[in-house]
Amino acid sequence: MGVPLNELLAGNQHYAEGFTQGELALPPASKVAAVVCMDARIDPLPALGLHLGDAHVIRNAGGRVTDDALRSLAISERLLGTDAVLVIHHTDCGMLTFSNEQIREKIHAELGDTAYQVAEHTDFLPFGDLAQSVRDDVAAVKASPLIPNTIAVYGLIYDVHTGKLSQVE
Amino acid sequence: MGVPLNELLAGNQHYAEGFTQGELALPPASKVAAVVCMDARIDPLPALGLHLGDAHVIRNAGGRVTDDALRSLAISERLLGTDAVLVIHHTDCGMLTFSNEQIREKIHAELGDTAYQVAEHTDFLPFGDLAQSVRDDVAAVKASPLIPNTIAVYGLIYDVHTGKLSQVE
Repeated sequence: MGVPLNELLAGNQHYAEGFTQGELALPPASKVAAVVCMDARIDPLPALGLHLGDAHVIRNAGGRVTDDALRSLAISERLLGTDAVLVIHHTDCGMLTFSNEQIREKIHAELGDTAYQVAEHTDFLPFGDLAQSVRDDVAAVKASPLIPNTIAVYGLIYDVHTGKLSQVE
Repeated sequence: MGVPLNELLAGNQHYAEGFTQGELALPPASKVAAVVCMDARIDPLPALGLHLGDAHVIRNAGGRVTDDALRSLAISERLLGTDAVLVIHHTDCGMLTFSNEQIREKIHAELGDTAYQVAEHTDFLPFGDLAQSVRDDVAAVKASPLIPNTIAVYGLIYDVHTGKLSQVE
């Protein structure tokens, strides 16, 4: 791999030597749970002016509100007291650049028939319109029976070139 | 909510004013994709000695290797060139403290019958043994037809009290 495991563990050793936040409470201090794309160019906590211990961070390809994200949000809210959800997608997202058919064909070509059989039944959740994808995912949170309407839900777009968040109405 | 949206946006305004990393490449520089628990006390990038632009970060309740995490990993590897997966669970995890039955009953009591009907068919993926949960999820990555055996997969436990990572064999 690009960075070998022993280098990552050495980086962690350095981090642990300077670590002073060992007594943080389990429930997030800000009561926020953020659903964010996995993109490498986003570090959600500092981008929201938050710190270690402040927020649950749920991330996947696209920052999509999947059943698994709803599972995580339900645990966050019912067991750990969060009461606001941020859905954060971003500019220049890889999810804007392919279709289900394209990634399935790529998987078929690179990984073979068995992988293709799984890929055929997988929705990779790409999208064509960034603001609309945020609106769709905000709507998916609000529509879930697992998320009561006492939970505030906001949609945001993060600009990877400026670090700036803007709200999607 | 604990921290209102305008305060988060003000925090972001401050972040954006100091933002200097606007020209990072889309593919993660370290070629690492990390599957990590959503816990508020973990900030995966600095904990791995990594920086903005270095790694895909996939997070959910428990850091479990769900179908959605595998969707994200497949996109990360096929389209953006990552070739190593880290599965990172952690000490003092909320997932060690409840059963499916308990959270379903809590959802029933707090949110009613419709929510319960969804919860009944949701596996919230709690676990009773931390190291075993890491091994199980490493095995789930390796078992997926979407993840070829050219991908390195490592399991780790993060200690929220010391900031230290240790490998699970």
